[in-house]
Amino acid sequence: MKAVVYEGPGNIRLVDRPLPSLLEPTDAIIRVTKTTICGTDLAILKGGVPTVAAGRIIGHEGVGVVKAVGKGVRHFKAGDRVIISCITSCGSCENCRRGIPSNCVDGGWILGNTIDGCQAEFVRVPFADNGLYHIPDAIHDEVALMLSDIVPTGLEVGVMAGNVQFGDTVAIVGAGPVGLAALLAVQFFSPAMVIVVDLDDFRLALSEQLGATHTINNSDGQAVAKILALTNGRGVDAAIEAVGHPLTCKLVQEIIGVGGTIANIGVYSQSAELNKQALWTKNITIRMGVVNTTTIPLLLQTILGGKLDPGQLITHRLPFGEALHAYDLFTHAGKEQAVKIVLDMVAQEEVDLVELIVRRIMAGG
Amino acid sequence: MKAVVYEGPGNIRLVDRPLPSLLEPTDAIIRVTKTTICGTDLAILKGGVPTVAAGRIIGHEGVGVVKAVGKGVRHFKAGDRVIISCITSCGSCENCRRGIPSNCVDGGWILGNTIDGCQAEFVRVPFADNGLYHIPDAIHDEVALMLSDIVPTGLEVGVMAGNVQFGDTVAIVGAGPVGLAALLAVQFFSPAMVIVVDLDDFRLALSEQLGATHTINNSDGQAVAKILALTNGRGVDAAIEAVGHPLTCKLVQEIIGVGGTIANIGVYSQSAELNKQALWTKNITIRMGVVNTTTIPLLLQTILGGKLDPGQLITHRLPFGEALHAYDLFTHAGKEQAVKIVLDMVAQEEVDLVELIVRRIMAGG
Amino acid sequence: MKAVVYEGPGNIRLVDRPLPSLLEPTDAIIRVTKTTICGTDLAILKGGVPTVAAGRIIGHEGVGVVKAVGKGVRHFKAGDRVIISCITSCGSCENCRRGIPSNCVDGGWILGNTIDGCQAEFVRVPFADNGLYHIPDAIHDEVALMLSDIVPTGLEVGVMAGNVQFGDTVAIVGAGPVGLAALLAVQFFSPAMVIVVDLDDFRLALSEQLGATHTINNSDGQAVAKILALTNGRGVDAAIEAVGHPLTCKLVQEIIGVGGTIANIGVYSQSAELNKQALWTKNITIRMGVVNTTTIPLLLQTILGGKLDPGQLITHRLPFGEALHAYDLFTHAGKEQAVKIVLDMVAQEEVDLVELIVRRIMAGG
Amino acid sequence: MKAVVYEGPGNIRLVDRPLPSLLEPTDAIIRVTKTTICGTDLAILKGGVPTVAAGRIIGHEGVGVVKAVGKGVRHFKAGDRVIISCITSCGSCENCRRGIPSNCVDGGWILGNTIDGCQAEFVRVPFADNGLYHIPDAIHDEVALMLSDIVPTGLEVGVMAGNVQFGDTVAIVGAGPVGLAALLAVQFFSPAMVIVVDLDDFRLALSEQLGATHTINNSDGQAVAKILALTNGRGVDAAIEAVGHPLTCKLVQEIIGVGGTIANIGVYSQSAELNKQALWTKNITIRMGVVNTTTIPLLLQTILGGKLDPGQLITHRLPFGEALHAYDLFTHAGKEQAVKIVLDMVAQEEVDLVELIVRRIMAGG
Repeated sequence: MKAVVYEGPGNIRLVDRPLPSLLEPTDAIIRVTKTTICGTDLAILKGGVPTVAAGRIIGHEGVGVVKAVGKGVRHFKAGDRVIISCITSCGSCENCRRGIPSNCVDGGWILGNTIDGCQAEFVRVPFADNGLYHIPDAIHDEVALMLSDIVPTGLEVGVMAGNVQFGDTVAIVGAGPVGLAALLAVQFFSPAMVIVVDLDDFRLALSEQLGATHTINNSDGQAVAKILALTNGRGVDAAIEAVGHPLTCKLVQEIIGVGGTIANIGVYSQSAELNKQALWTKNITIRMGVVNTTTIPLLLQTILGGKLDPGQLITHRLPFGEALHAYDLFTHAGKEQAVKIVLDMVAQEEVDLVELIVRRIMAGG
Repeated sequence: MKAVVYEGPGNIRLVDRPLPSLLEPTDAIIRVTKTTICGTDLAILKGGVPTVAAGRIIGHEGVGVVKAVGKGVRHFKAGDRVIISCITSCGSCENCRRGIPSNCVDGGWILGNTIDGCQAEFVRVPFADNGLYHIPDAIHDEVALMLSDIVPTGLEVGVMAGNVQFGDTVAIVGAGPVGLAALLAVQFFSPAMVIVVDLDDFRLALSEQLGATHTINNSDGQAVAKILALTNGRGVDAAIEAVGHPLTCKLVQEIIGVGGTIANIGVYSQSAELNKQALWTKNITIRMGVVNTTTIPLLLQTILGGKLDPGQLITHRLPFGEALHAYDLFTHAGKEQAVKIVLDMVAQEEVDLVELIVRRIMAGG
Repeated sequence: MKAVVYEGPGNIRLVDRPLPSLLEPTDAIIRVTKTTICGTDLAILKGGVPTVAAGRIIGHEGVGVVKAVGKGVRHFKAGDRVIISCITSCGSCENCRRGIPSNCVDGGWILGNTIDGCQAEFVRVPFADNGLYHIPDAIHDEVALMLSDIVPTGLEVGVMAGNVQFGDTVAIVGAGPVGLAALLAVQFFSPAMVIVVDLDDFRLALSEQLGATHTINNSDGQAVAKILALTNGRGVDAAIEAVGHPLTCKLVQEIIGVGGTIANIGVYSQSAELNKQALWTKNITIRMGVVNTTTIPLLLQTILGGKLDPGQLITHRLPFGEALHAYDLFTHAGKEQAVKIVLDMVAQEEVDLVELIVRRIMAGG
Repeated sequence: MKAVVYEGPGNIRLVDRPLPSLLEPTDAIIRVTKTTICGTDLAILKGGVPTVAAGRIIGHEGVGVVKAVGKGVRHFKAGDRVIISCITSCGSCENCRRGIPSNCVDGGWILGNTIDGCQAEFVRVPFADNGLYHIPDAIHDEVALMLSDIVPTGLEVGVMAGNVQFGDTVAIVGAGPVGLAALLAVQFFSPAMVIVVDLDDFRLALSEQLGATHTINNSDGQAVAKILALTNGRGVDAAIEAVGHPLTCKLVQEIIGVGGTIANIGVYSQSAELNKQALWTKNITIRMGVVNTTTIPLLLQTILGGKLDPGQLITHRLPFGEALHAYDLFTHAGKEQAVKIVLDMVAQEEVDLVELIVRRIMAGG
């Protein structure tokens, strides 16, 4: 099968790899129908994620059809259309029992990291009962694909960790894919004001389409002053940091109001300065974390109920054969006006043909 | 001044009464610009609220302009445009400190109950700093009027007590004013499905306009079966009882799902049967209570943010001089297709004239 | 093996039954070392639990040693000393994912109900990774046995559902095993006053030993008046109903204070009257439910930390061969001054001998 | 009257000052019977709190007897024995209404800061209904004194902000007065393990007396390693930083476990490094803030219920005339083995005499 493989810093390739097989009774094999590239995949490409070894199939977002399940899989069967969660979880370890499957002692974010991932025609999903979700008939594959990681991340790590309440004032700093996902999700909670800060006018224009009440291009460094002006000097109730840079970590500290919450939704590779002397009298909360994806069932309901359309995040669609071109596009996401790029696998008929050929080869034909 | 006075069971009159005056340093006198009739006022009219003595000016919903404040009032001054909360609270008793001002030991619901109320040209508001809320310029009086009682009640006692979460399935049983207010408020929390049950087609049609995803006319007694069908037999996550009748109390018990919450938003004058044998294995919660109106500031923000238009609840507008006609209309709300009836006071110019005359009379004319 | 089998209303017997075997890869077989009788078992004996068919091995509380595990069991192996939770849960169905394993669609309370239970020398435990808990070396079997059901029930369904906070006033109505378990557990939350109500002086004396600050024998029907006097007329913050009778359901409604919570911890076989007309202005919450046993890991930590000794609930210890006598004792628990009766299996050496014989028989020897 | 007055950096004096008088109708004048010195007072003495002007009477902890109240004070009268909260709050501003009186727009921590404080024979307390608490007869003055600031701070900003649950593992870093107050308060929540870290053996020995299950003298810099060993590498569920130094801010980050909370209970005058790259995958929360003292009523109940004895924090008692000596002692708290030093005013008879003389002088006698 075709797969995107990390070969070392700066080097990925689309290569042929053997089909995965069931290793444990709780495994499932999924024929991937659509996958997408995450910002974390770019970090891997740069060599910035040391747990990813050369030779690894990368990617942790995908939807597909169940091809085979182990004997211990209870809720899925061949033919089921499913979302693959970016998080693998055993469901019974100490952290899973505490409601933190992102830190499952035998799982967590391992797909496309320490085990082969979703940017391939087939993928093995461990603990399938906990890592897959049925897609209702009324929801299109590419919409469901947004629930593998990006929308739950914006929702859980940004909005819910940010404790957003109706009537609140919220700032989202960074209008990349995860910031925009937080922008979609924040509207479940009916804040009165949602301010999006970025340096890119295209993304800010898109933010307005997606529900921002105010947008600020911080190229002039005036975002803090503008946000304080918008809030009568009070600052915001929730500040969602969706960039991951020390300067934006500083910015959210400067705009947070009394009793507010800073939610860090980025992937952090360096420390930040915490201005305790300015913040401690404000009774604030700071949160950071990895998505648990436990909100996927409720997100599916909100889509069915017409309250969410995560397809709005998709700007590009390419066949999987052009995966390396998609990486190029996503690397220059600003210039290319790219948010989420969907990679489509070939049609079912072609897959059937491939499978037939594979079986013949394996049978020594 | 003109005032609606309860004279005994079945008997209210619009009569002349002396202007109220400041009794405590924390009092304010409000010139009422708009008031409205609550279902509780109808109960008073029928003699069903024994705490209301004959001679009482009734009404506990109003907006107006501050005319005078006591020396201990800090946040309001003459001329301020304000919402009058239906709840009076001292802010420092045991229950106020615990966050339950509805049970303030020196307040609670007393306006139009144990002290003179809002269906009058002027009203004395005790503990003005806790019982008044500034109306932002951008919000119209009649919209603000809906925050005196009905919208906070739907929100706090129905939706928040009902613990509604995004993606949930919610049933609102009863599409009277408070049920419809709950319907407006529930949308702050992005449920996937909102089912409204009533016996009146006009109110169900209005419910659809106001955001219900499904409506059921229970004239055929099939509401339980229909709701179970809609939810694949699971029942609902939150059931909001907005009628107050033992039969609807029974209905919500029959549709509540595992882990669900029943929120009782009615005014209850009789007991209900609690089917513990059927409910105890379902891990459910039941709540009931009086509104605290502590959400008014956030509600004002949601209106400013364009997330709420409580003016949608207003079906009729009458001059205050026709208050008794308004009571007639509201008594036959179903037939009259009435939800909230706004009673308008005379124009400012006329008020000024009245005040001038009053001053002359008081000065010995 | 020996097992207590329900033969129909009023009829249980201690009989020989075949050893259980692994049916699913997620099963474990446990050699039970200690078991105990629950109030629910008495209800079964009376024929009051229709889901229990004649021929069923009853019992849902036990500790033991893992004898065998299916291939899908990850966290347990033969020889592990374990608590058997009274709740069976798949860990991946809708309700398990929502944190309500008591309502697992393939589990819930099924042990000793719809599948064979723990009052036997061996028991099959489905979904072993979710239904077993390792016992730390420092904790004795009979102490751990109290965590199968009774202590988590008192804690989760009584104290946590009752939302007990430090400084609160709590009433526990009923000092049977589950009421006393709630009494032990409530002390984790440091209430200022814990009032226990019962009709039995022995149980009230025991309640004082176990931490009640006040006890009331309600034989004179004065409990409500006494509790109101103790609380200066305010009533209690949390009322835990641990009897299950309509009269005690009435009592808790009469003592609950403003903002308080009634937690129903009984097994209910009939409805109760809910005095909404008296309660609705008090802003109260009512809860009822089945234990999830998700607190077992934290309870084990509190025992290790010296904050809990559930062994205090044990009044009688009998060999398993006297199980029917134990049922007699427990049926007359008041007269016999019985709370929890531990049934001990035979010693390890004898078990080894039995196993040896069984193997020889199976080997055809 | 005698008062401790800040005269500039390094300079405080015990001087005669005029009696305070009622300025607002919501004021009360309290005759202070006992006061104490806070770590913040030492910071003021060093010139480290720029809001404190020369000439200010300092001190924000005290108990006493109400001498006079303004006409707007409803819940207190002359002769009442009261705790003076360190926090002044109007009860009706935006932040008070949101439950954050520590950030009252007209109050907050102002006593002994921007208005004259409690280290004096008499003090004016603004918004007396919100800033005073009745002391029950059964509670001694010096015990109640500990509720002015230190115990609520340990409880609210340390333990409650730290989200401590029963069965948890907690580390308290710093066994000064506020760390020890957190140690007393944490036991309301029944953690299984409470580890106290300090550099002073006396304070660690005292910590063991006050309920620490483990103490670590970090003079060897091995605290992190020891805590990880004690927790099987998991780290702690809650880490309470009670020093305020960047090194201890670093330490708590190194010991926090997955899903844990860091509560910063110090007064911070410099920034700290936040190691996001190490922490973000752990799904943690960080909190910091100023005490609201809203827990005082519940704390009084816990004392009455025998669950708390904050008198255990008192190591020294001196007459108020020796206040400067007390500052010396507290400045060298480690060497002097001082935790809380109670300053006693002279006896009532002497006060009466003083008042008599004052009246004569004021009357021109």
